[in-house]
Amino acid sequence: MIKSIEGGICAAKGFSASGVHCGIRKNQTKKDLALIYSEKPAHAAAVYTTNLVKGAPLLVTKKHLADGQARAVICNSGNANTCNANGVEIAEAMSGLIAEKLGISPEDVVVASTGVIGQPLDLTPIAAGIPPLVAGLRADGAGCDAAAEGIMTTDTVKKEVAVSFELGGKTCHLGGIAKGSGMIHPNMATMLVFLTTDADISPALLQRAISTDIASTFNMVSVDGDTSTNDMLVILANGMAGNPEIQEEGEDFATFMRALGTVTVGLCRMIAGDGEGATKLLECAVSGAADLQTARVVAKSVITSSLLKAAMFGADANWGRVLCAIGYSGAAVDVEKIDVAFRSPAGEILVCRQGSGVDFSEKEAKRILLEKEIEILVDLHGGEVSSRAWGCDLTYDYVRINGDYRT
Amino acid sequence: MIKSIEGGICAAKGFSASGVHCGIRKNQTKKDLALIYSEKPAHAAAVYTTNLVKGAPLLVTKKHLADGQARAVICNSGNANTCNANGVEIAEAMSGLIAEKLGISPEDVVVASTGVIGQPLDLTPIAAGIPPLVAGLRADGAGCDAAAEGIMTTDTVKKEVAVSFELGGKTCHLGGIAKGSGMIHPNMATMLVFLTTDADISPALLQRAISTDIASTFNMVSVDGDTSTNDMLVILANGMAGNPEIQEEGEDFATFMRALGTVTVGLCRMIAGDGEGATKLLECAVSGAADLQTARVVAKSVITSSLLKAAMFGADANWGRVLCAIGYSGAAVDVEKIDVAFRSPAGEILVCRQGSGVDFSEKEAKRILLEKEIEILVDLHGGEVSSRAWGCDLTYDYVRINGDYRT
Repeated sequence: MIKSIEGGICAAKGFSASGVHCGIRKNQTKKDLALIYSEKPAHAAAVYTTNLVKGAPLLVTKKHLADGQARAVICNSGNANTCNANGVEIAEAMSGLIAEKLGISPEDVVVASTGVIGQPLDLTPIAAGIPPLVAGLRADGAGCDAAAEGIMTTDTVKKEVAVSFELGGKTCHLGGIAKGSGMIHPNMATMLVFLTTDADISPALLQRAISTDIASTFNMVSVDGDTSTNDMLVILANGMAGNPEIQEEGEDFATFMRALGTVTVGLCRMIAGDGEGATKLLECAVSGAADLQTARVVAKSVITSSLLKAAMFGADANWGRVLCAIGYSGAAVDVEKIDVAFRSPAGEILVCRQGSGVDFSEKEAKRILLEKEIEILVDLHGGEVSSRAWGCDLTYDYVRINGDYRT
Repeated sequence: MIKSIEGGICAAKGFSASGVHCGIRKNQTKKDLALIYSEKPAHAAAVYTTNLVKGAPLLVTKKHLADGQARAVICNSGNANTCNANGVEIAEAMSGLIAEKLGISPEDVVVASTGVIGQPLDLTPIAAGIPPLVAGLRADGAGCDAAAEGIMTTDTVKKEVAVSFELGGKTCHLGGIAKGSGMIHPNMATMLVFLTTDADISPALLQRAISTDIASTFNMVSVDGDTSTNDMLVILANGMAGNPEIQEEGEDFATFMRALGTVTVGLCRMIAGDGEGATKLLECAVSGAADLQTARVVAKSVITSSLLKAAMFGADANWGRVLCAIGYSGAAVDVEKIDVAFRSPAGEILVCRQGSGVDFSEKEAKRILLEKEIEILVDLHGGEVSSRAWGCDLTYDYVRINGDYRT
């Protein structure tokens, strides 16, 4: 049984976290440096952006995680340390400074950065911020809150999820924090997501778990179709729950996957619902697909359509845009079999049957679409496979935020 | 020599056009029905959307053009006649009504519709509009203006281009009108584009000409990434210039292609610059690519990025978004060789060299980006091939227009 709990990344035994304002961002009320620390060595696995332009911190982290081990994560916001001539040098220096202060090896540090691309990252505020950052480490919810705030950019809410579950008679915990907002269209990886667990699981199975999970979770999220240069998901597993180490697929691995999926879907919904400028969380639920690829391609195409996203902002049941997005998705579907409905806490309404419009009450549709969480239900009537994708509406605020992001 | 002239689709001999308000649209000051007519039978060729959801008029037009012949084009705006159970029936009836009035065969009619998807198209206003539509046919610029207005939806300006050129000692003309605005991301076809020419060219070569041309023109335009269900480009060639019929590739075909490209690039720039809500025309010029596919993929990815489009709206030289869009484009490029510059009538400024930022004056960049036409210059330094793509900025008005399009 998977149970939702408080505590985020500090829910798992042996993990502490902190966050401070060190001065990378001019706004002094916003934390811009975060730390996650495991009191014991942890197995670690990660997935990274597929963008050919990769942030320097990702290159350094990949090298550090080659042995499947890590004990700390340091992450700054306000500057992505990407497309800078000295990026790798700075990321190595960040690792070295925090490792020295924590008394661990620099190779056991995960380093991450998020923010504007192409502006040199100054090490001075980071160096100054490290002593208070380490001094502030706490193993409770307040520690998680501080770290979650430290990694935020244009996010408006902190994103934390945690669960407890049982493995081999031992209670395990798994929690995560994430930052999302803009440049969100992960491909084989995700935005910045940091997960911790006290479950004992081998590095190989840990990697398999996250690589499998992201295909149906973070890779099904889109805010604006732009795949970031700095997407990264990292998980640390320190084994302090004391369960027998998971070394192969089986019942324990399945339980771990369910716990993982509960946390990652929760974070996906938070990332989509807090997309830049968003007023609504959109979820496209595709059913009746012939295969998983078809279901995923259709769901992602619908959730990515600028026209549909703008219609949802206006609470306009413009289902033709759903069909249009399915039609250009590249998936092989029979258009004349497709049903489309909209659902929200206010009700559900069928708007298209077998590819053609049905008579429906515009007033009722508007009432349903004025809610904050909208499901777009697509039944392809072509098979038994389902998939979901998450996104948000396209609003004036998205334009405002991105029309003048750097200044 | 290709010479720009006035007259649009009426520039070519033997073509007349008209447009009326028949009542499909509630706004009585906006024409919603257009007609193009050739006094002699014309060779005809067309390309259509690759969207699996296809407007009923496209299916009917495709059937009518099977013999490579047509004499008239009828097009309504305000309703796309797509995803309606009776769509084909209505499109056939439109063809029949106009053919009867013109005294031609229904098989020689091209029928097109644009507007909202999934609402039944009422034939009554169209039937009532046909007599004044035919009575209003004019072979001058006023006829072209009326037709160009009749096909507009959220377009804010009429889009007409025409050229004259010589073939076999005869002066030929080629002109076109287009509607663009939203749901613009053509794939192997385009928005509604109607071209006329009095050049004599065989149906096979006419088809080859437009199929070749669109790959570097309309298929390189994007307003919002949504490939419409109703994209169509049709060309009518009535041979009235009296040149020897073009039956094979050679010098005359090359001249025809240059004339065609002049008209289509002109229309592309108009469609992009008048994208829904747009305040700026963006042109991404990619050079130094290893092959044409790479150049095109990179140019289109840059022009399609929501983040870059929003930055251009804000006149923000956020070139990191250009590199990001190149990185996720799928093209195999060496990121560390890429140079990026912005150019406008106010000047040119280099912002990124070899994949990293260079010192530049933000004030100077702002001055350049405040202009209405912006070029984004990308040099991949990986070969000799170039390509261009056209788009527009992402603005508050795009959200406003599409948040409440149907009401």
